[in-house]
Amino acid sequence: MDLNVMFHPKSVAVFGSAGVGKLANVLANRLLDGGMNRVYIINPKGESVREAKGYTSLSELPAKADLAVIASPAKTVNDILENCGRSGVRAAVIISSGFSEVGNAEGERELTETARKYGIRFIGPNCAGMVCTHANLVATLETSPPSGGISLISQSGAIGGSFMSLAADDGVGIAKFISYGNGGDLTVLDLLRYLKTDDETRVAALYLETIPSGREFMHAVHDVSAVKPVVIVKSGRTNTGQRAALSHTGSMAGADVVCDSAMRQCGAIRVDTLQDLLDVCKAFATLPPARGKRVSIVTNSGGPGVMTSDKAETDGLLVEETSDCVKAKLREFLPSFAGIRNPIDLTVEGTGEQYGQAITTALEDSDAAIAIYIGTPYLDAMPVARGIASAAKKTGKPVAAVMQVGSDINESLIYLRKEGIPCFPSGERAVSSLAALARYEEKLLRSNEPCLVVTRPADVKKAFPEGENRLLEPVAMKLLRENGISVPDFVFSSEEEQAVQAVRELGYPVAVKVVSPQIVHKSDCGGVMLNIRNDEELRDSFRRMAKIGEGRDFKGIVAYPMLKPGKEIIIGLTSDPCFGPMIAFGMGGVYAEVLRDITFRVAPVSQNEAIKMIKEIKMYPLLCGVRGEAPVDMNALAEIIAKFSMLPFIYPDIREADLNPVFVYENGAMAADVRILGK
Amino acid sequence: MDLNVMFHPKSVAVFGSAGVGKLANVLANRLLDGGMNRVYIINPKGESVREAKGYTSLSELPAKADLAVIASPAKTVNDILENCGRSGVRAAVIISSGFSEVGNAEGERELTETARKYGIRFIGPNCAGMVCTHANLVATLETSPPSGGISLISQSGAIGGSFMSLAADDGVGIAKFISYGNGGDLTVLDLLRYLKTDDETRVAALYLETIPSGREFMHAVHDVSAVKPVVIVKSGRTNTGQRAALSHTGSMAGADVVCDSAMRQCGAIRVDTLQDLLDVCKAFATLPPARGKRVSIVTNSGGPGVMTSDKAETDGLLVEETSDCVKAKLREFLPSFAGIRNPIDLTVEGTGEQYGQAITTALEDSDAAIAIYIGTPYLDAMPVARGIASAAKKTGKPVAAVMQVGSDINESLIYLRKEGIPCFPSGERAVSSLAALARYEEKLLRSNEPCLVVTRPADVKKAFPEGENRLLEPVAMKLLRENGISVPDFVFSSEEEQAVQAVRELGYPVAVKVVSPQIVHKSDCGGVMLNIRNDEELRDSFRRMAKIGEGRDFKGIVAYPMLKPGKEIIIGLTSDPCFGPMIAFGMGGVYAEVLRDITFRVAPVSQNEAIKMIKEIKMYPLLCGVRGEAPVDMNALAEIIAKFSMLPFIYPDIREADLNPVFVYENGAMAADVRILGK
Repeated sequence: MDLNVMFHPKSVAVFGSAGVGKLANVLANRLLDGGMNRVYIINPKGESVREAKGYTSLSELPAKADLAVIASPAKTVNDILENCGRSGVRAAVIISSGFSEVGNAEGERELTETARKYGIRFIGPNCAGMVCTHANLVATLETSPPSGGISLISQSGAIGGSFMSLAADDGVGIAKFISYGNGGDLTVLDLLRYLKTDDETRVAALYLETIPSGREFMHAVHDVSAVKPVVIVKSGRTNTGQRAALSHTGSMAGADVVCDSAMRQCGAIRVDTLQDLLDVCKAFATLPPARGKRVSIVTNSGGPGVMTSDKAETDGLLVEETSDCVKAKLREFLPSFAGIRNPIDLTVEGTGEQYGQAITTALEDSDAAIAIYIGTPYLDAMPVARGIASAAKKTGKPVAAVMQVGSDINESLIYLRKEGIPCFPSGERAVSSLAALARYEEKLLRSNEPCLVVTRPADVKKAFPEGENRLLEPVAMKLLRENGISVPDFVFSSEEEQAVQAVRELGYPVAVKVVSPQIVHKSDCGGVMLNIRNDEELRDSFRRMAKIGEGRDFKGIVAYPMLKPGKEIIIGLTSDPCFGPMIAFGMGGVYAEVLRDITFRVAPVSQNEAIKMIKEIKMYPLLCGVRGEAPVDMNALAEIIAKFSMLPFIYPDIREADLNPVFVYENGAMAADVRILGK
Repeated sequence: MDLNVMFHPKSVAVFGSAGVGKLANVLANRLLDGGMNRVYIINPKGESVREAKGYTSLSELPAKADLAVIASPAKTVNDILENCGRSGVRAAVIISSGFSEVGNAEGERELTETARKYGIRFIGPNCAGMVCTHANLVATLETSPPSGGISLISQSGAIGGSFMSLAADDGVGIAKFISYGNGGDLTVLDLLRYLKTDDETRVAALYLETIPSGREFMHAVHDVSAVKPVVIVKSGRTNTGQRAALSHTGSMAGADVVCDSAMRQCGAIRVDTLQDLLDVCKAFATLPPARGKRVSIVTNSGGPGVMTSDKAETDGLLVEETSDCVKAKLREFLPSFAGIRNPIDLTVEGTGEQYGQAITTALEDSDAAIAIYIGTPYLDAMPVARGIASAAKKTGKPVAAVMQVGSDINESLIYLRKEGIPCFPSGERAVSSLAALARYEEKLLRSNEPCLVVTRPADVKKAFPEGENRLLEPVAMKLLRENGISVPDFVFSSEEEQAVQAVRELGYPVAVKVVSPQIVHKSDCGGVMLNIRNDEELRDSFRRMAKIGEGRDFKGIVAYPMLKPGKEIIIGLTSDPCFGPMIAFGMGGVYAEVLRDITFRVAPVSQNEAIKMIKEIKMYPLLCGVRGEAPVDMNALAEIIAKFSMLPFIYPDIREADLNPVFVYENGAMAADVRILGK
């Protein structure tokens, strides 16, 4: 079914008791107030609500209903859906609660089956409804906002209501609001994909407490954000917040650091609060693209200019000193006491014309501008607003306005909004939004890669023999080698004489380790001996290892040439409950332990993405060489990360694995130890 | 002069042209509108403004003026001040600009001298005036706010105006606003000290772009914040912001990390934005003290509860799961579907009575509560507001309210404010404010120490001989030893034979370093030799050092016993342009270089404070011992930090110094190298 029918119905049937104060009554009123002309009420008594006539069944309606809004008791919903199906209604919003959220998964499954049978698509159950301002559709109890380009999909109805209330207070326009409740049919993914093709939506906003099917979610976000920005609040960031979210939604939550990596990887713009969500969406919905990070600040007061500059640096925007050429032009029309270095400070005497000219001129150097006006008794706000709007029009670049103080700024705010200039109550908030704009454009420029290289290769293999879930070190090393991951030469021998022959060929000196499925921490029990220099020492080491392995299924020894020490790296593979296989990268030793200087990606990653991971860790300068050292071989390291990240896809029976340490050198890198565990 | 006269004048004389649109005219209007009864205007023409009668000189006034507000041209101000002096006016606000801010330091000095002569105290020049709501005094062009307990001292007039405008919009009361401009007489320090004793002020707010006389500032803040909180926005945090502040104020700025340390050290509460400043001040002005960090969240919607919990953890508050005892009590009056684990989720059906009871009950476990109400068509906001207020009254603990969505919340907001409950537009902002409350109480509990141990000891010494500014290593080591700082044994010898004798006594093996005032980086030129084991090797090393020192004023060699390696620490002394001597502490080697894992204090520090510094660095766990290592001797390390931090006070000719490295061991610590530079 084309979801357009759901969002642009010509007629709506509301199911439920229509008495005053009842849900269906409120919904009918909201629909009528919102401007929906054909609203029908259906309930056993056939009660009406205002001009919306009451009926006792769908079949009595004078015309077909395009959308059913169901607010009747849970036990009646499936029958209503059946009737809808038989009457040709193909879209429904099920407000009614009493389904999976209270353990009635069976009742919810029935709804889904009924809907499938008839080709009905529905939102809910247990949701706060939906809004499509462009279709005069207000099928929710929440605040009705003005019409515009922001669409919000929210896991929480109340958050949706709060968002629309903030938007209404700020005069910001909404295209759609969708509270998907339990997601019995249409999920956040379906809805997000719909927003991609929806011309009324300029920016997609999401509020989520849990992320369903992580990888599919990433693909959807990546896909949509190639066309329009996807801005997300994902709460439950902290342990405390997760506990609150769990007791509230009953869903599983993974680590937030993983979620954060995944969001960045698929191009989502993550923000922390609803206010941030609105600010950023407002900028995206109204402004032209920001082609770079240089921002000019034009103000009539030094203090706010300083604070805005501070925030700009914090958020990664560049407040560069004005170029000589622009300075010269500014001097032509600004008084000598005006500051022209950026911030450009017009002082309390700055006129509307000066604002306009200064912004236009400054934008010759910059990619975006923030105009700050602090009301003074000397100035009128309106001429300043006109100057700002004219500069924005003339330059075609993003200009954000900050208008503070004074009873006369309200008119200016209304004017600026009408002219498509987003207004913020502080320079800092303008900065956050422009920074998001600039980052999004930057992302668009470089996102020719898919966000996940591959999910399953054509033919998969088994890493583990039947019934086993731990690979012996030589087997694991062989698996790495077969998959192109650089490992040292090694020999495995189950008997002493064989070991001597093999190691002679390998060449002394060697390191020797015990091989036993029952010994995990080899060093702790003396199962590692270094610098074995000759046959005699090797025989001795073999016997010692056999002794250590006694009664613990001793398999033999593995011997490696002595490796020269390099920088110690850890690379790990884990599995997140939401996103599946994850790859982690960090410096080894105390860096990993104390600093937790580790970066994550949803696996697998390309070599390019692996290079980004390497550059992300705090200790990255150490890899670049400090105190005259040469930099390490980043490409060799990235190759190991990328190839290692493929393993869970080639071998789906791998649960987790780590290379600890990997030694990385000026030339080359090599996994010096490995652990691979099965499911 | 008692500043009370300045803030509570019974009559005000305004100096300046009184034509419409002129500064003095606007000021007279603001004073009259503000409720000041006796306003006189003085200008050459004797023009009046409304009921404020005009005069040509002070001597004509029907009664004495308590306060002069001067808005006449710069060149007339000194004469006016003279007249004030002669007429017994002892307080003035000089709005007029054209003094040191445009290079007219001489004109400003004249004002100061005139004021001193007559015992006049003044604010300004080049300021935006002042407000004292409790005295109906509005001597500013900026917005006039409602009366309350927050006093703001601002370096920027526009920021002051914005703050009062935000406050007025939010119904938050202000006691005083003071824009001190150039600070020609009364400085931010004088004004801050005045606020300490001012009963109308419950919380002092400061907006600063530069900090004058850093140490005096710290003492003042420390002193005031023992009685009432001091909340500060200090802008120019970043390089970009500092550049903006410098071109705007012309003042010197130090590093922000130093400023931040100083603020924490003296007990200031630093926030980033004006909105944060208002939020935090609002909480301090209205709420009782928070006796701990546990907070209960009572909500009628899960989503906002999750987001508030996230922010609480981020800000260091504890959203602990409700105790069994409180759970049992909650179950008695809450329906089964309510969440009772904290957040306590009353759901959309939560009544005002339930809010009241739930908050009261939850506060048996907690130190503060946040009540979140998201409007729904089922509920009225007023009963909820009453429930919240009654719980706050009953428990006597801090309760903050968050009321969102719905046209009926305005009445509740007004009611709650009247009841002394601060209202925030989001749970996150309520959290920030409660967290500041809790941190302030915590600080009060532990601040029995002065913020700076000492500034100058009774008798100071000279570290450097006349005309020199660099100590030779053995001299510097001796200075450390004399000041109780642990250093290794060492011998200094200027001749080979003497060296052999001395080192024999010291005992082999030793490390040998070249001593020359012209060689700073000894290792770089081969000036350090380790592990010298006998006389022969020593002679050889002496000759090598003499060779290296040839033509570079070779003084001899210094020899140390070989030190066992410990954890490498760096301790540094620098001088900040604003705060003077600073002490820095961090891990040595790559940690310092790559991580910049360094913490600062304004020197000197006590041993207690030094322990806090040690605990602050990211690599602190490394000092506590990882991988089975024993912890290092924190006390020995703290002793070195504390004693080293005293050096610039004992030897005022020391400009900077560092100990790099200090070796710290399981028992003891020792400075292994030292560099001391003079002024």
